[in-house]
Amino acid sequence: MPFVRIDLIHGKPAEYRRAIGDVVYDAMRQTINVPEGDRFQVITEHASADFIFDPAYLGIARTADCVFIQVTLNKGRTTELKKAFYQAIADGLHERIKIRREDVLINLIEVDKENWSFGNGVAQYA
Amino acid sequence: MPFVRIDLIHGKPAEYRRAIGDVVYDAMRQTINVPEGDRFQVITEHASADFIFDPAYLGIARTADCVFIQVTLNKGRTTELKKAFYQAIADGLHERIKIRREDVLINLIEVDKENWSFGNGVAQYA
Amino acid sequence: MPFVRIDLIHGKPAEYRRAIGDVVYDAMRQTINVPEGDRFQVITEHASADFIFDPAYLGIARTADCVFIQVTLNKGRTTELKKAFYQAIADGLHERIKIRREDVLINLIEVDKENWSFGNGVAQYA
Repeated sequence: MPFVRIDLIHGKPAEYRRAIGDVVYDAMRQTINVPEGDRFQVITEHASADFIFDPAYLGIARTADCVFIQVTLNKGRTTELKKAFYQAIADGLHERIKIRREDVLINLIEVDKENWSFGNGVAQYA
Repeated sequence: MPFVRIDLIHGKPAEYRRAIGDVVYDAMRQTINVPEGDRFQVITEHASADFIFDPAYLGIARTADCVFIQVTLNKGRTTELKKAFYQAIADGLHERIKIRREDVLINLIEVDKENWSFGNGVAQYA
Repeated sequence: MPFVRIDLIHGKPAEYRRAIGDVVYDAMRQTINVPEGDRFQVITEHASADFIFDPAYLGIARTADCVFIQVTLNKGRTTELKKAFYQAIADGLHERIKIRREDVLINLIEVDKENWSFGNGVAQYA
């Protein structure tokens, strides 16, 4: 189970927010071997005072439409797979809802397979 | 210090949300050797558009009452202890507030002991 | 990129919340070698029922003004650097907005350098 936290500015329509979740899930399916149905995501909107990004770090021009995507997932994907995952998210968000690729920020937190329970109090992957 | 993030659907009473925190804390005390008083938790409610779960992944039937519990804690618990912790949470939530065991999702993020400050700018565990 | 989540009680003014972000960023710059402009932070306010802290754990007297600061960052800082970081945050929050040092809780989550994309779907640190 990747568990996904999506943080963005307040005020986008529900379909827009939902599309972000769709794109992240599709990118997982296509690039990092996530099984069908393995989709658990929470989205949080923030007032602009509470959503702070640098508009130029690393020479990338960001706007208030930037999106933070933090994914907790099992250890062990190669750097190549991670790169493909990032590109698929940035491309998908641009194609589907016109988010600028510069505005897509992604972070992965890797954990052991016994660190999950998907229900019933069982460690399904251990 | 385990630090606990609890995410759930919007609209449950405060006592219900608080009971989730109580159960997670009690499970920590009983199964994974967390000291008395080591309780730091934030609860976030989400509109249904922003709280996305698969209703069948791994053959487990989930409802909109599912709860995501993400726990950051020190490294080093055995898989057996983690399993006991998951079971204690699922059982406790079912017994205390009738959450279906299928609706309890748990994820652990493990960190080093010097990665905590509990106040005063000191790394109390280092 | 450290990515910072700040959780606190509901009802503080926007300038107060923003000052917390300022202090955390300044502490990063001064103590743990974070580059200029590397600032990405989300702040979430919680009702008191949803913001749970122990008022005495480890003998530290905490109040409802306590702040949880969770920082995801690259692996590899020494314990000495982490301690300096904690102290700089606690001191800065006290000096700038009078938060009691006892009320400052910090947790670090360390990840690999290929676990970040800052925009454009590229793993800039890999």
